[in-house]
Amino acid sequence: MEKTIAWIEKDKCNGFSRMIDQTVIPYEYKKIDIKTSSEMYDAIKTMVVRGAPAIGIAGAHGVVLSAIENIQSDDFFGDVKKQADFINSSRPTAVNLAWAIKRQLDLMEKNKHLSNREITELLIKNAVKMEDEDIEINKKIGEFGSAIVPKGATILTHCNAGALATVGWGTALGVVRSAYMKDKTIKVFADETRPRQQGARLTTYELIRDNIDTTLITDGMGAYFMKKGMVDVVITGADRIALNGDSANKIGTYMLAIAANYHNIPFYIAAPKSTIDPKIKSGDEIVIELRDKSEVTIINDKPICDERVNIVNPGFDVTPGSLIKGIITEYGIFKPDEIYKLFE
Amino acid sequence: MEKTIAWIEKDKCNGFSRMIDQTVIPYEYKKIDIKTSSEMYDAIKTMVVRGAPAIGIAGAHGVVLSAIENIQSDDFFGDVKKQADFINSSRPTAVNLAWAIKRQLDLMEKNKHLSNREITELLIKNAVKMEDEDIEINKKIGEFGSAIVPKGATILTHCNAGALATVGWGTALGVVRSAYMKDKTIKVFADETRPRQQGARLTTYELIRDNIDTTLITDGMGAYFMKKGMVDVVITGADRIALNGDSANKIGTYMLAIAANYHNIPFYIAAPKSTIDPKIKSGDEIVIELRDKSEVTIINDKPICDERVNIVNPGFDVTPGSLIKGIITEYGIFKPDEIYKLFE
Repeated sequence: MEKTIAWIEKDKCNGFSRMIDQTVIPYEYKKIDIKTSSEMYDAIKTMVVRGAPAIGIAGAHGVVLSAIENIQSDDFFGDVKKQADFINSSRPTAVNLAWAIKRQLDLMEKNKHLSNREITELLIKNAVKMEDEDIEINKKIGEFGSAIVPKGATILTHCNAGALATVGWGTALGVVRSAYMKDKTIKVFADETRPRQQGARLTTYELIRDNIDTTLITDGMGAYFMKKGMVDVVITGADRIALNGDSANKIGTYMLAIAANYHNIPFYIAAPKSTIDPKIKSGDEIVIELRDKSEVTIINDKPICDERVNIVNPGFDVTPGSLIKGIITEYGIFKPDEIYKLFE
Repeated sequence: MEKTIAWIEKDKCNGFSRMIDQTVIPYEYKKIDIKTSSEMYDAIKTMVVRGAPAIGIAGAHGVVLSAIENIQSDDFFGDVKKQADFINSSRPTAVNLAWAIKRQLDLMEKNKHLSNREITELLIKNAVKMEDEDIEINKKIGEFGSAIVPKGATILTHCNAGALATVGWGTALGVVRSAYMKDKTIKVFADETRPRQQGARLTTYELIRDNIDTTLITDGMGAYFMKKGMVDVVITGADRIALNGDSANKIGTYMLAIAANYHNIPFYIAAPKSTIDPKIKSGDEIVIELRDKSEVTIINDKPICDERVNIVNPGFDVTPGSLIKGIITEYGIFKPDEIYKLFE
């Protein structure tokens, strides 16, 4: 499986991060090599790499790049941590970024008796291990999740929680892929997902290449198809999950969850344990990223409106646990109010 | 008030229909002269003129153009009716088109003892009368509707039910305008309204020119702002209302109504009596227009997705009366289950 993001080793303590440029799909498929920690900050910020699990790996790579940059430093840990904090500030909502960076910093801390060079080697090994783990985790999520997909079902999804949002396979689309392995008749409705259209640009791109029957709909259409009985289950990814199961995901997810509940259609979140933030009790504590005005006003390099209009552009919303039937993780499917048990 | 669509008289039984070209706003503001009934069919079909009340007037003008074209005909009524039926087939969901055409045909029927020329003069007079009536009706809708807008309220609307959707003033935006006349502090959230973006292109265009504080949001954002307590009332137009109050309106409206109800925010429809179809008992009988794939896949002349994806593009959805707090008409505000009383 080709990785969405992968460490390319030059030698045991040098290399760079190679990632699929997600800003140019579906017009172009190209890879970008990120060779400095500052470039990594920009790549995450501008969404060259996006998707909670994928930006986790990007963060882990970012720490490695910072270690390489500071390999001669007398304050190695301090300098790397400073740059890691900077990378962590690139996007506030997805907890996987903070989680992966912390995992690398903890590894440094634990091995501070070693040389800078030895620590850097360990960071590289750990980053590659996290890449491989991510794929394994997604395969498990897919396997558990496929059990809740009825035969011949149509699955509605929002944004892109696919191979492109992870190292490979995907979370919500991992469930789709695993279900498709068992039943070639399943179908997908992919929400466009304005403003950045990850559903239109990325999800349809991925699924068409896997020959999965995919219909693109606009974000306002979901309830129409639900009412017609054409949606069997809704599955999305998540960017941060609180201990009570409240789940932040791409803006528009909350609206979809409300509509699913109104029609008694099960709404599931598919996400790895690393997306759960054990430090927060409820979704009220999740910081919602506000993004640039131009994401709303400009499509395909041209304005869609009088640009004097006001814009507020929240990147995410929070779906309360009460609207979620289950959270599909690599450890099984949990009711939202039982997800805290993963940390006991 | 400049009319969105107006009959331009060349002499008492000749002339043409002049309308604002709504396909080029906000990039350009220009008027188009429609001089034949076939051109009128195309103008409605391609949405040069759109909005239920406005296409009603377009239909009335279309009958006039057909009368002018057939003024020498031995089967005047038959030939005009044939072309009127053709125009009526241009868009199936908005009942105002059928209503206005029928009003013209009834006038012909009632005056069939007159000459073709005299009948054509009557049709022209009637069309102009309908234009003026439309503005008066909207002002009344605005006046009744403004009573339910709290001081300093933020109104969320979908698509464009404004001056551009009518001859002038607007239905849902007529309520906004009338409320604004009394209270300059009201604000509007305008849904983008994919696929054709009438909210982004037309509603923000109209409201900014009237100095009304307007924020453009994407279709998936409504529930986010509702949860934050930033939406006080939702008001949209309608394209066809059944006798039980079920209301067809632009795709996405139903999703918004569900979200409003989930947050206990009142959801209103603003529409003239001519939008109510006394021939249908419930929304299940409303034909939903399916439109072209390219409306979903192409924005600003460029695809947003892999064009091999499947598309279903319903232009409208039906919001059940149970989700509607009131229907604001020129005769007052009715509960959905009492709207039938307008026909008693």
